[in-house]
Amino acid sequence: MAPVDVYEAMRTTRAVRRLRSDPIPDDVLRRVLEAATWGPTGGNRQPWRVIAVRDAAKKSRLQQLYEAPWRAYSAAHREALAAAPSDVNERDARMLAAADHLASHLGEAPVILVFCFNARLMAITDSVLDRPSVVGGASVYPSVQNTLLACRAEGLGCTLTTLLCIAEPQVKELLEIPQEWGTCAFVPIGYPVGRGHGPVSRRPLETMAYADAWGEPLR
Amino acid sequence: MAPVDVYEAMRTTRAVRRLRSDPIPDDVLRRVLEAATWGPTGGNRQPWRVIAVRDAAKKSRLQQLYEAPWRAYSAAHREALAAAPSDVNERDARMLAAADHLASHLGEAPVILVFCFNARLMAITDSVLDRPSVVGGASVYPSVQNTLLACRAEGLGCTLTTLLCIAEPQVKELLEIPQEWGTCAFVPIGYPVGRGHGPVSRRPLETMAYADAWGEPLR
Repeated sequence: MAPVDVYEAMRTTRAVRRLRSDPIPDDVLRRVLEAATWGPTGGNRQPWRVIAVRDAAKKSRLQQLYEAPWRAYSAAHREALAAAPSDVNERDARMLAAADHLASHLGEAPVILVFCFNARLMAITDSVLDRPSVVGGASVYPSVQNTLLACRAEGLGCTLTTLLCIAEPQVKELLEIPQEWGTCAFVPIGYPVGRGHGPVSRRPLETMAYADAWGEPLR
Repeated sequence: MAPVDVYEAMRTTRAVRRLRSDPIPDDVLRRVLEAATWGPTGGNRQPWRVIAVRDAAKKSRLQQLYEAPWRAYSAAHREALAAAPSDVNERDARMLAAADHLASHLGEAPVILVFCFNARLMAITDSVLDRPSVVGGASVYPSVQNTLLACRAEGLGCTLTTLLCIAEPQVKELLEIPQEWGTCAFVPIGYPVGRGHGPVSRRPLETMAYADAWGEPLR
């Protein structure tokens, strides 16, 4: 495996939703998962675990659980798109087509990573605020991002989805996840059908970053 | 800036809490923030913004807001440590000393990044579950992790903290953050006083990753 510059890896780690079913060598999977362990967590408590699902019946069941919420989500998304400008529409329509493909083929990915977390091991500093809490995610999603970047370095396609949280009780039963642990990320990975990773499409920096106060342009 | 292999960057991005006050060149800061924009978000909606705080009075106010919750947190942490095995105790005691230093010098960091998010732009799939929600974090913390990795590549020390969420109303007033946006991450960055980044200290992979079911060893 050739070295990949970290900036190049970040700039080209995009969602890859069409995956070949070819197996992932054990040593490759281990490198990807070890990269996850390097992520930062609050107080270095590492309040997450990951289950690498390769069992065909379990992957098939995950696909089955994915399909209904995906159909609901994509129908709502398509409805919103009908009102959007045509350039947004076209880009999102392509994304939805690839995501439809994923929903119909999730179980064929060689590995589906299921990330779990334990809220009792987290200091959730925004839990008392009058808005949705996100801070628990600070101790899991950096590790998930490391996973995606490692996949990029290995030539593996992947995408991060949280849709299966909707079916968490069923997922927990399927994978024997203990009561006090929740699910927070699902990452199907595999070698890409097409070109795989490539330049991401994002808003320009000027619209995302401010200087010293909200809305002030970064000099 | 020499290329840094993405695995090497991930393996050596650790919390650096002792920072020099020397300024960060504008082009370096822009590269770091652009890396943040490359992070994945749900539906590519990019429901976050970042404010780079360089104004001395504002940084000083952030430090002031940080100190009381830090003292409460660290006192509880030190109490828990007294009961822990001595090797854990020693490692955590070093971390707490560095974090005490950060709390007393936060305002001297050349830049404090304040990440904001808008929950209305997120599909929070775990919001109805009977456990703390974390999924909103899936659309912000991958970008925060990119920020940390870019700092590592640039030789900048940094650390991710969420403690200031406790003082969110005051932070929002200080930085003129609109009502519908919350704060989710605070990253002081600067050139390191000491060696800066280096190998992270984490649990072995075998204790973090399972195969096909909870607790099953990864082959």
